Formats: sequence, structure tokens, C-alpha cells
Amino acid sequence: MSTTTAVTTTADERIDDWLDRLNQALEARDIDAACALFGPDCYWRDFVSLTWNLHTAEGVDEIHAMLASTLAHTAPGGFAREGDADEADGVTESFITFETAVGRGRGHLRIMGDTAWTLLTTLQELKGHEEKTGRNRVRGVEHGVVRDRENYSERLARERAELGYTKDPYVVIIGGGQGGIGLAARLRKLDIPTIVLEKNPRAGDSWRNRYESLHLHDPVWYDHLPYLPFPQDWPVFSHKDKIGDWLEAYTKIMELNYWTSSTVQSATYDEQAQRWSVEVDRDGEQLTLHPTQLVFATGMSAVPNIPDVPGQDVFAGEQQHSSQHPGPHDYTGRKVVVIGSNNSAHDICAALWEYEADVTMVQRSSTHIARSDSLMELALGGLYSEDALAAGVTTDKADLLFASLPYRILPELQKPVYDEMYKQDKDFYDALEAAGFMLDFGEDGSGLFVKYLRRGSGYYIDVGASQLIIDGGVKLVTGQLDHLTESSVVLEDGTKLPADLVVYATGYSSMNGWVAQIVSQEMADKVGKVWGMGSDTTKDPGPWEGELRNMWKPTQQDNLWFHGGNLHQSRHYSQFLALQLKARMEGMPTPVYALAPVHHTS
Amino acid sequence: MSTTTAVTTTADERIDDWLDRLNQALEARDIDAACALFGPDCYWRDFVSLTWNLHTAEGVDEIHAMLASTLAHTAPGGFAREGDADEADGVTESFITFETAVGRGRGHLRIMGDTAWTLLTTLQELKGHEEKTGRNRVRGVEHGVVRDRENYSERLARERAELGYTKDPYVVIIGGGQGGIGLAARLRKLDIPTIVLEKNPRAGDSWRNRYESLHLHDPVWYDHLPYLPFPQDWPVFSHKDKIGDWLEAYTKIMELNYWTSSTVQSATYDEQAQRWSVEVDRDGEQLTLHPTQLVFATGMSAVPNIPDVPGQDVFAGEQQHSSQHPGPHDYTGRKVVVIGSNNSAHDICAALWEYEADVTMVQRSSTHIARSDSLMELALGGLYSEDALAAGVTTDKADLLFASLPYRILPELQKPVYDEMYKQDKDFYDALEAAGFMLDFGEDGSGLFVKYLRRGSGYYIDVGASQLIIDGGVKLVTGQLDHLTESSVVLEDGTKLPADLVVYATGYSSMNGWVAQIVSQEMADKVGKVWGMGSDTTKDPGPWEGELRNMWKPTQQDNLWFHGGNLHQSRHYSQFLALQLKARMEGMPTPVYALAPVHHTS
Repeated sequence: MSTTTAVTTTADERIDDWLDRLNQALEARDIDAACALFGPDCYWRDFVSLTWNLHTAEGVDEIHAMLASTLAHTAPGGFAREGDADEADGVTESFITFETAVGRGRGHLRIMGDTAWTLLTTLQELKGHEEKTGRNRVRGVEHGVVRDRENYSERLARERAELGYTKDPYVVIIGGGQGGIGLAARLRKLDIPTIVLEKNPRAGDSWRNRYESLHLHDPVWYDHLPYLPFPQDWPVFSHKDKIGDWLEAYTKIMELNYWTSSTVQSATYDEQAQRWSVEVDRDGEQLTLHPTQLVFATGMSAVPNIPDVPGQDVFAGEQQHSSQHPGPHDYTGRKVVVIGSNNSAHDICAALWEYEADVTMVQRSSTHIARSDSLMELALGGLYSEDALAAGVTTDKADLLFASLPYRILPELQKPVYDEMYKQDKDFYDALEAAGFMLDFGEDGSGLFVKYLRRGSGYYIDVGASQLIIDGGVKLVTGQLDHLTESSVVLEDGTKLPADLVVYATGYSSMNGWVAQIVSQEMADKVGKVWGMGSDTTKDPGPWEGELRNMWKPTQQDNLWFHGGNLHQSRHYSQFLALQLKARMEGMPTPVYALAPVHHTS
Repeated sequence: MSTTTAVTTTADERIDDWLDRLNQALEARDIDAACALFGPDCYWRDFVSLTWNLHTAEGVDEIHAMLASTLAHTAPGGFAREGDADEADGVTESFITFETAVGRGRGHLRIMGDTAWTLLTTLQELKGHEEKTGRNRVRGVEHGVVRDRENYSERLARERAELGYTKDPYVVIIGGGQGGIGLAARLRKLDIPTIVLEKNPRAGDSWRNRYESLHLHDPVWYDHLPYLPFPQDWPVFSHKDKIGDWLEAYTKIMELNYWTSSTVQSATYDEQAQRWSVEVDRDGEQLTLHPTQLVFATGMSAVPNIPDVPGQDVFAGEQQHSSQHPGPHDYTGRKVVVIGSNNSAHDICAALWEYEADVTMVQRSSTHIARSDSLMELALGGLYSEDALAAGVTTDKADLLFASLPYRILPELQKPVYDEMYKQDKDFYDALEAAGFMLDFGEDGSGLFVKYLRRGSGYYIDVGASQLIIDGGVKLVTGQLDHLTESSVVLEDGTKLPADLVVYATGYSSMNGWVAQIVSQEMADKVGKVWGMGSDTTKDPGPWEGELRNMWKPTQQDNLWFHGGNLHQSRHYSQFLALQLKARMEGMPTPVYALAPVHHTS
């Protein structure tokens, strides 16, 4: 209908044009030309493909530095659009594919006008070491009748007899929860000899052992493990025992070398031999394992934080950290004071209420509350839901989209979500405040996920306990602890709370606390604090680091890694940790760009 | 480019036009008009949606009769194209959807010119009883804190304590192989209280107990169970123990009430009460179950066929039916004569050869051999392969396409496949014949799948044993048994085969033999022969019946059903059996059209 002669381009063409120019610049090793393709506010986030690290270069100067260091040996190129580009509000975006000297990658690009705003590049596979899926799957049997051929059961039995005894695993994963299990599945697909050490007697027990009424707080679409999605009829919020049973089935289906009832007593690293000695009690048997790589997948909870309160020695009742709390069964009719107001505190209060204990929550500082339904609708729905699937946003795509937003700009993009949540749930929030609850939405209003990334605490995904606080079923007191008497908790304002049990739902120290326990305090200090990104907010001190500290990427200690996070993170980031480990096992050069320095030891 | 004024229509338009005319005719209850839409050579195959049966109406007269009987109460309508139509060789085809008074359906249509050649209608779900998948999935938990709420584990524990003890199952499935397991999963999704009785101690043992080198003969894409497809990295041909482990995990994931170490001693049907009494030994505990519906999923192998040969009483060595053969381990260096030349005979010979027994196969009649690779490429590749998936042919669509070809025309359509196979593998077939092996491709050259449907025997999917015969590693003798001496098998031509062990790989009688064993000979005769379609070929006597006898559909005995077949059939047909059972449980009218009469008792 247009009668102008102006050249109008489609979204696809604009993406293609930008990628062509990037390819030309990279091929010519012309870093200035490549940098000229980025706008003033720009980000290149790279997972492993250029940096052998998880790193976000922010602004043209950092992108220039990154390319100057990595372009020659990684040789990225062949950038191409994957699928159709989208366009909204002046931003054109598309999934992309590319190659490097040693691998193939996928990513995501956003351009505004002629220049890029965000570019994500992630390594997907190493050439010559592709996973054997789809067309590439193994045959299983070369048909034909062969004497003395080793079959599936014989191979598994031999492997299980050898690994850790006569043959060293390449990787040992400490912790067999969903994080360790998902990573081990990825390592299995890459033929990396791996042992998972789990202290409980059965896979899934880390879920089964939790309080009875626990269901997932995140919806099913967000929670898939790698390779084997939950069936189509899986509940939106599964019960913890169902997840436990799934994890147990999964470890078997994935043929993991999963050692149950196995605890790590100590580990030491031999810098000379570049391998670990890991002392293990395997169901009573003492063993020393010698893996090259050691992964802590022990959960974000390490050494319990218990506040030092005068009178703890004179209090006559029970005192427990939340991690020691055995569940509500024995406390019917008893007086319980729960110190804290985050997820654990709420969960424990609700379970105690179910068993008709007399429960008081002591809130010491403001807490972010997000209702599970609202979170699902407003924060996750676009990426992880039936609607998202219907719109073609598969789990893989959702994970890439999620990762495509660098942490620097994430808070600004999250604020509208929580503004809307506050508006939508205003009556609920008003009722909570009327009950005396101190609310926040993060220091900058950026809500739950950013708070989770910054400090892993400070919030509750409401699955019902908030209503108990509103209704007074769980009594709420705000204030600071002053001391304990023989029979009560006394706050600074003089409030006296009679108690048979005090639960300290007061959180945990950083995950490197596990390293201190298992290896040494020295090594824990060497690798430093785990989690957080230097946002200069409470419990996440600066300077800015741009990616989560120490998670899924090289640390200051060779051959020591941290893995975990929620189900979504464990699923997605296990892919990049697995590729880093595979490259090292195969002896490929893996020069790490911008290895993060340590600013904090805990 | 055309300058004519003729109206050209697209494939989509031709399909839409035909469906519109069908809708108008059906809505007007104008059976003649509906029949006028079919060509002279036409088929309407219906699974449950109109007939509450599996039935193929062949030709206009049978279609007329079917509609005359069913149209008024089933009220099919709303036929619509699903996806794009295809066109080749003068045939236009498309997937379709439709509704009936009580359900929703999918199907497939082929038209030539203005009239239909084949129409498939299948019931997919009952209105008001839809499976809870995707958008319809259960929430799992209504968030909120509720006292005395029953959680997942408590519900499962209660159900397992009650079902079969204080609460009657609606369905009992005898046999917990892949057939019983897949059906039970479907019944679970439809909230039908079901118990599966498995004689072995663990789910999957029916696979584990088979010979050591066994791998699936069909490729992975053909073998998925309902709801939970194999992971993307599953081998093309899995080892039997891996399948066993998968089935065991599957029963747990699907929350089946799966009773292991449980054997059925007898069952009787109370015509008055319209329910069964099933005597069960559950791991030493004697129980009587009272299900309304009883499903035999006992495998197509019932009472062993052992030929009556003079001298069986004087033979001093061992004699076993193939079903009793314990595997090759104890026969190294021993002389074994295997009677028969179908799958079991080949498998047993190959396993014995692996253990260095001295093996002779006695072939009594010609056998169809299809190499597994060729079968995968030529017979299955279009529907079940990575190529098929890449072309958008999902497992669901492949199953519908497979079903869209009525059995009457299937042989003619299969012949070119096997002509091509013969050409492609000519050297192999020549070598087999040179070794003295008597080959066939079915009486009309229609090959393996048709032979399987007609008689469930008479073939070997070659996974290697044929080469042993060609090479002489397994000795081949052709002829008929005459008698046994103390130490040998003697054929009619006088050939004397010294033997320590004689294995009768001589097949099984019909599956209603299980009914004779468990219920009564009278009831076995009442329901008659199971499997086959009356093709008037060897072991499948006429008259023509059009669908498999007694499988997955109503039998002459109320509330008695047969389920099974290969993994593909178990997956697909379990859907229709499950819907038939659900409708009955809900008390919906289920008038069966064209209940098949019994022409043969075995």
C-alpha cells in the first residue's frame, strides 16, 4: 500500500544484516569494527564459548577487551538467525546460532536501530564430543551374534565394580540432590566417569526428609530436569515425595553412578598431581577417591547461622537451627518461637500450626512476600507455562531468553513485574501490614528473583503461611532478640515470649563453608564467597561482579567447582559446567578469560 | 500463470469441501447422502467413536449399515481438517478432528477425486472425563495451609492399603509386562481403580528373564510407552534389561497399583452381579479380588504347542518348550537340536552358539526373514524415525497414519516394501537359500507386519542369527520330525541328529488358552480365538473379519478383554481399551455395533 520508495526492512533482515556485519568483522579479526556494531548501552554475555567462563562484558570497552583476549584462539563466526525475529517497542530480537574453533553455540540477540543492546553466546557442544541424542543416538547393539560381547547389564555391573575402586572417576560430585543428579546426567551423556556422593540412603531423600506438606513452590514448567521432562500430566506443584520418587527413578534411568549412604569426610588437593584425594564413608566402607575434578553440589545451605544470644545456655527448652528441626509431629500443644521470617521460617510455622502447636514468628527485618500464583502469572508465565509452550517457547528457548538479560539490567526490567504484583495483590499486602508484617520488594523494588540472585534469602514465596499470619493463627512479633530466660525469649523492647522450643530460621553462611568443613578454611578463603553478584545491597556487598560468584564456572582453585541453584538454574547451568569439565578431560586448552577475583571470603 | 477460467482447488480446499458435505449429511441424518461421499472402493474404520468397537466398514453397503445403526445415538459431526492436507498420486489426505454426542475424536481421511477412499475415526476422549494433561493438569496442591490434608504419599499409601482389601478395583489386569503397564497408566489417568497382577518379583522381569543378548528388534521410535517417551538419547535398540529397568521406573512414576509376585489361580464371572471373583496369591497371601472388568494382558504366548513325537518318552536327554528354556549357560559343548525356525528358534540358537554349544536348527516349513536394518529403513522409516520426526510425524500422528490403512488393503500396500527389501538384500537372501534355508515373504508377498497380524508367527527379524546359519555356525536341517531315540532326533528322511537337549520352539496356541487355564474351557470357547483377521492364509482361517479377533475390543463375554501386541500396538490400542472401560465405569451407554461372532475356538 506504501507509495514511498524508502527501503523498508523486515525484522529478519535487520537481524541478518547485523549478524553478517558481525561475521565480517570477526572474520577480519577487526575488533573495532565488531565493537562498532554495539550501541552505547550494550552487553555481551558469554557462557563458555569465548571466555571458558560465565562472563558479561558490559559496554563497548569491556567487549573490546574481551575480544582482544579471546578472538584469535576461539575464532567465533558463522553467526546466523535461528527462527523468526521478533520486534516490539523498537527492539528487534532473535535466537542465533554460531560456531567457534572447537564448538557450536546458540544465543540471543537484541538490536535497537543498527546496533546491539544485548548479545548472549552460549556453548552448546564441543566438536567431536557431541551428545548422542536424536539422529546421533547410539545404536545400542550392532546386530549380529558375537561371543563374549558385554551387554548393558554387564557393562553397568563392571563399571560399578571398577569406578572408585580400580578406576578413578574423573569427577566426584558431593551432594546427590537435584543439582548433583542433573549434572551427573549431563556428564554421563558426555562419557565422563563420575561418582555422585549422597549422604542419604535413597536418591530423592533430600526432598522426602523435608516437612510433610511441602510442595514445589515453582510451577512444573520451570522445574524440568535435563533430558527427561516431566510427563504432560504432572501436577503444577508436585508434592516433595513425588519429586523424590522422580529423582530416584531419574538416577536409575540415567544410569548414574550414584553412591547412597555416602559421606565425605575430607578432601585434599594435590597441586602437583592435579587431582583430589577424597575420603569417603560408603555405607560403612572407608574409601579414598582420586578424581581430577571436585564439584560441590551441596545446596546453598552450608554452616547454619545461629545468632549468639545471651541466655542460650540457661534456656531449659529445646533450641534448633531450622536445618535441625525434625518437623512438627512432636510439638502439638507446645509453645514454639520461630526466629526469622523468610521461607524456612514460614514453612516451619505453617507446619507447626497444622499440628496445633502454639506458634510465634519473630520478624527481625523486612521480608519480600510474593504469592505463588502471582509469581507464576506475572514473573514466569511468559517463559514457563502452557501459554509459553503454545507460543513456541520451549524449555530450552525459555532458558536462553532468561539468560539473555544481563544481571546489570535485570532489576530495572523486573520492577514493573513487582509493581503490577503489588497492585494486583494490594488487599493481601495491606492485610499483612495490618497484621504488623514488615514488607519489602527488594531495596530497589526489583522483587524476588533478583533478591534470590543477590543473597539467596530475604523472601517467602507464599503458599499459605501468610494467611495464617493475617488471621493470627501464627502470632507475629517484630523486634530484635535480647536474651533468653529459662522458659522464654525476650526481645529488646521487653516483650517476653514463653517457649518450649526455639527455632532459629536464621539462614546459612556461604556455600564455601562446605569447603572449609571438607577441605580447609584456607581453601574456602581462597575461593571466597559463593553466590551474589556484588550489587552493593544487603548481604551482597560490592564491587559489581556481573555474574554469580563461583557458580558453575572456574574458581580461584583449579579443579574445584560449585553447582546448584533452583531447579531451573541446575538444569540450565549444568550444561555449561558439564562442557567445561568435558573440555578439561579431553585436554583441550581452556584459557579462562576474566577469572573473578575474590572480594569477600564469606 | 494459468489463463483458463477453470476453478482450481487446493488440497486443503478439497478436504474441507468433503468434510463440509459429510457434516451436512450427518447433521441431516441423511445416510444416503453420507454414503454418496464414498467411492466404490471405500473403507470407514472406526475405533470406539461410533461403534464402541474396533470395526472397519468395507464398501458403501457396510458404511450404510453402520450409520443406520449408530448415527442417531452417536451424533458424529464437526468434522474438520487438522493441519495441512497432503497430496500425491491422485490421493488427497489429511488428519481430521470431530465430535460425537459423548466424546471428541481424531482421525484421517483420504479422498480420490470427490469421494473418499479411507476414513478413520478414533475416539480420543470422553466429554467430562478428559485426561488431566497440559492446560488441564492438576494443580497438585491448592496452596494454603490446611490441617489434616492428605498429601501425595498419604494418598498413595491409603490407596494401596485399601485397593483389593476394603475397596474393589474396577479393573484387574492379569500380566504386568509392557502391555499391562501401559494400559494401567492410561487407566490411572482416567481415575479408574486398577490393580495389575505380575507373577515376577519386579516390574520389568518379563524382559530381564529373557536370554542375555536380547535387544529390542524394533527401533526406539516405534516403542515408546504412553505419556513418557524414551529420552532423546535412548539407544535405537535397547538391551532387554534397560527396557526392564525403564518399565520398573515407569510403574513407579505412573503411580500404578502394581502387585508383584502375584499369580492368578482362578477367576469366575458372576453374570448376575456382573463382576469377577479372582483368586490371587500375592506373595504368599491368598486374596479374592472383585473387579468389574478383567483384562488378559498375558502376552500372546499361552499354552505351549509341543508336537507329539514318538519316542519322546524314551529320549534320555532334556526336552523343553522354548518358553521353558533356561538360557544357554549350561549347554556349552552340548549337542542341542532346536525344532522350529521362527524368532524364538533363531534367538535360542544364537544364544547357544554364543556359549559354544553344538546347535542344529530343524526347519519344518518356510520362514519369512527380514533384516532389522532393512525393516527399519523400508517398513518403519516413514513413520517411526528421526526423519519422520523431522517431517513433523510425531508418534501420535504415526500411530494414526498406521491405523488409517484398513487391514483389507494393507497387504497390497505392503508388497512393494518387501519387493524392495528382497532386491536390496538379495545377496543375503541368496546366501540363506544357498545354506538350505526355506524362505518366504508371506503367502502373498506382503511381508512381516501382515504375517504378524495374521498369525503372530512365521518370521524372524534378523538381528544376526541368519549369518550364523549362512556360515554354518548354527547347522541347518530341513524336514519333518519322525521320532526320537534315546539319544537323537530322527527326521522323516532318516536324518539322525544326536542331541543332549531338544528345544521345541514350536509356538503357542491362541491367547484364549489363558482363559481356559484361569476361567474355564467353556469361556475360552465362548470368546474364541484371539488374534488374526480371517485372511484365509496359514494359521489364519477365514471368514474375513476385518479387525484382529478379540483384541482391545468387546468380546462375546461381557467384561472380559484382551490387551497386548508389540510395543507400538500396546501404546496405541491401550488408548481405546481405556476409553471403553472408562465409559462403562461411568455408566455411559456403550451399544456395541457389529460384535464379532466366533468362528474358531483356537
